[in-house]
Amino acid sequence: MPALKFDLEHTDPYSKARAGTITTDHGEISTPIFMPVGTAGTVKAVTQQQLVKDVKAQIILGNTYHLYLRPGLETIEKAGGLHKFLNWGKPILTDSGGYQVFSLAGTRKIKEEGVTFQSHIDGSRHLFTPETVIDIQRSIGADIIMAFDECPPGGSDHKYAKKSMELTHRWLDRCFDQFRNTGEKYGYAQNLFPIVQGGTHKDLRMESCEYIVSKNATGNAIGGLSVGEPEPVMYEICDLCCDHLPKDKPRYLMGVGTPWNILECISMGVDMFDCVMPTRNGRNAMLFTTKGIINIDNKKWEHDFSPVDDGFDCEVSNYYSKSYLRHLLRSKEILGLTIASIHNLAFYMWLVSEARRRIKDGSFASWKQNMIGQLKQKL
Amino acid sequence: MPALKFDLEHTDPYSKARAGTITTDHGEISTPIFMPVGTAGTVKAVTQQQLVKDVKAQIILGNTYHLYLRPGLETIEKAGGLHKFLNWGKPILTDSGGYQVFSLAGTRKIKEEGVTFQSHIDGSRHLFTPETVIDIQRSIGADIIMAFDECPPGGSDHKYAKKSMELTHRWLDRCFDQFRNTGEKYGYAQNLFPIVQGGTHKDLRMESCEYIVSKNATGNAIGGLSVGEPEPVMYEICDLCCDHLPKDKPRYLMGVGTPWNILECISMGVDMFDCVMPTRNGRNAMLFTTKGIINIDNKKWEHDFSPVDDGFDCEVSNYYSKSYLRHLLRSKEILGLTIASIHNLAFYMWLVSEARRRIKDGSFASWKQNMIGQLKQKL
Repeated sequence: MPALKFDLEHTDPYSKARAGTITTDHGEISTPIFMPVGTAGTVKAVTQQQLVKDVKAQIILGNTYHLYLRPGLETIEKAGGLHKFLNWGKPILTDSGGYQVFSLAGTRKIKEEGVTFQSHIDGSRHLFTPETVIDIQRSIGADIIMAFDECPPGGSDHKYAKKSMELTHRWLDRCFDQFRNTGEKYGYAQNLFPIVQGGTHKDLRMESCEYIVSKNATGNAIGGLSVGEPEPVMYEICDLCCDHLPKDKPRYLMGVGTPWNILECISMGVDMFDCVMPTRNGRNAMLFTTKGIINIDNKKWEHDFSPVDDGFDCEVSNYYSKSYLRHLLRSKEILGLTIASIHNLAFYMWLVSEARRRIKDGSFASWKQNMIGQLKQKL
Repeated sequence: MPALKFDLEHTDPYSKARAGTITTDHGEISTPIFMPVGTAGTVKAVTQQQLVKDVKAQIILGNTYHLYLRPGLETIEKAGGLHKFLNWGKPILTDSGGYQVFSLAGTRKIKEEGVTFQSHIDGSRHLFTPETVIDIQRSIGADIIMAFDECPPGGSDHKYAKKSMELTHRWLDRCFDQFRNTGEKYGYAQNLFPIVQGGTHKDLRMESCEYIVSKNATGNAIGGLSVGEPEPVMYEICDLCCDHLPKDKPRYLMGVGTPWNILECISMGVDMFDCVMPTRNGRNAMLFTTKGIINIDNKKWEHDFSPVDDGFDCEVSNYYSKSYLRHLLRSKEILGLTIASIHNLAFYMWLVSEARRRIKDGSFASWKQNMIGQLKQKL
């Protein structure tokens, strides 16, 4: 099966930002790209139609841990894979479940073989190993699947981070072995991305980059950031990793972040992002807009009948007023969750597409500086 | 201001079913019609775009009680009325708040003047009178507004039902006085519909019809049904009321009901319906489909990848599978609530539009008999 193709089309002359196109068997992705998170087979509160038309999503994420527990592999396999189960024709990426499993602190145990954990739904015991995680992701059938890694807690010391990184590297070998020894199940190619770890320690990050690069994968990911470390440290590590990952492969920064995080990391050469922030914060009344941050619960919006955001083209953001959205969220109406989620996601998608446009016309660096100030502003 | 116009276009030769068109300042409504309930300024879990495109709603309901408490009249007035607040350009009907207030058993007191009650949100005390309820509905600005009535509990004896009906009639006089003494606030016409009461007592219902008809309103409503009485009794009373309400005015049966209730009552000459059943039951995993009733939580749908309903044209019902919807609802995912609500509403809208088509081509009566058996079936 032909793997994904990455065409690097433009590099910003004033930063390391890049614009490219990833081609998968489910179509093209224009980079830099943001990927909405569809944890349990749904981007929370948003229909697949809205994802295409309003959010303008090009690729979505699924979480292996959640999908494995519910609906379970039997259902997904019988449906013919996750794309068919969701009726989603565009690319999908699944994480390895590692991050979720490690978040279940207290109920999970890490061994050389893998990780045992208890389901958050019914308490049942399960074992994830590099091999089972590849098998599960074969059954789910995403276009891009992720290696099983340990994500050490933010602030881990050098000793712990080194031990964890080395385990991640041994698991990576086993992931690639299992990946090579198994085939895709649904007639289209899957791509395995390895993940750089090493905590906030530069020497470990460089060592991890070297190891990851040796796998010659079709794309590479940076993990273990935005887990509690200060923002400048995250930027420093991200920058270092980008410099040590190949230019001709897409770089995916996992789980990051705010709109300004995304712009900063684009300028370092990151191509792919995912984060629950637009949906989760949206459901909690925090809106990211072209003019700054809005806490829509604030009384100042009570009689503000202007659109949620008219700074970019999105039917939902342009259609509903701040006053109306505030009423819906305060009244715990489901429609409030939907509007806030669609708006925030559409804003993130606008942000990366605007970054891409600026990279192509050479105005990215100056635009980025202005935008970051504007986006951080509390309205 | 010109009031609404009702053109009675077809009468079924084999039943009392009618097809007509109601014209309001916000556009036309084809009858028989079902009106989705938008309690607090939102049809729960459905966007305005989905209401138009997927549900094909022609008119929606708002609840005076809920809107009065939240967002409150100041916000709605500043927005320029409920249509503008929701950004909904089609007709709206508001109930009088009577039904909600009486449901607050224990915290409300009925007097000649009106009803005092406590807010379910913050326990604050309020007074609804025929006059205030008209004033509130002037501020909300629906195209059709309802008289303030007492809806006696199901099974009320003759004495209570008579006393209650007489109070409702005195309140009706005050509603019309207040309606005539006040004007519309937003430049388009409002219409006040009176409500027939009288419980399950035929003599009272006939007396109430006579009183209501004397008001010569642009439309008339039948209230106090589907509140616990047996189905045959509901049909008998509905039929009696239809026979005693003018042919040249739309007849609105409030709060009814199941798909078969709607077909039966259409055949008696009802033109307008509303009910929370499609949305509320949908959120609780009960789907009404062209083939019968589905409890989507049932394990038999776990691996059923056929569409929720392919028996009529609705992108949402045709797009998502039973298996996927089951997964979403079992996982308490918001998208499950949205899909189930849109599907059930779209099905109700299909049902009344199909009834209308059949009334026009003369096949309503025989179609209705077949459909009722099919729709009641548990799949």
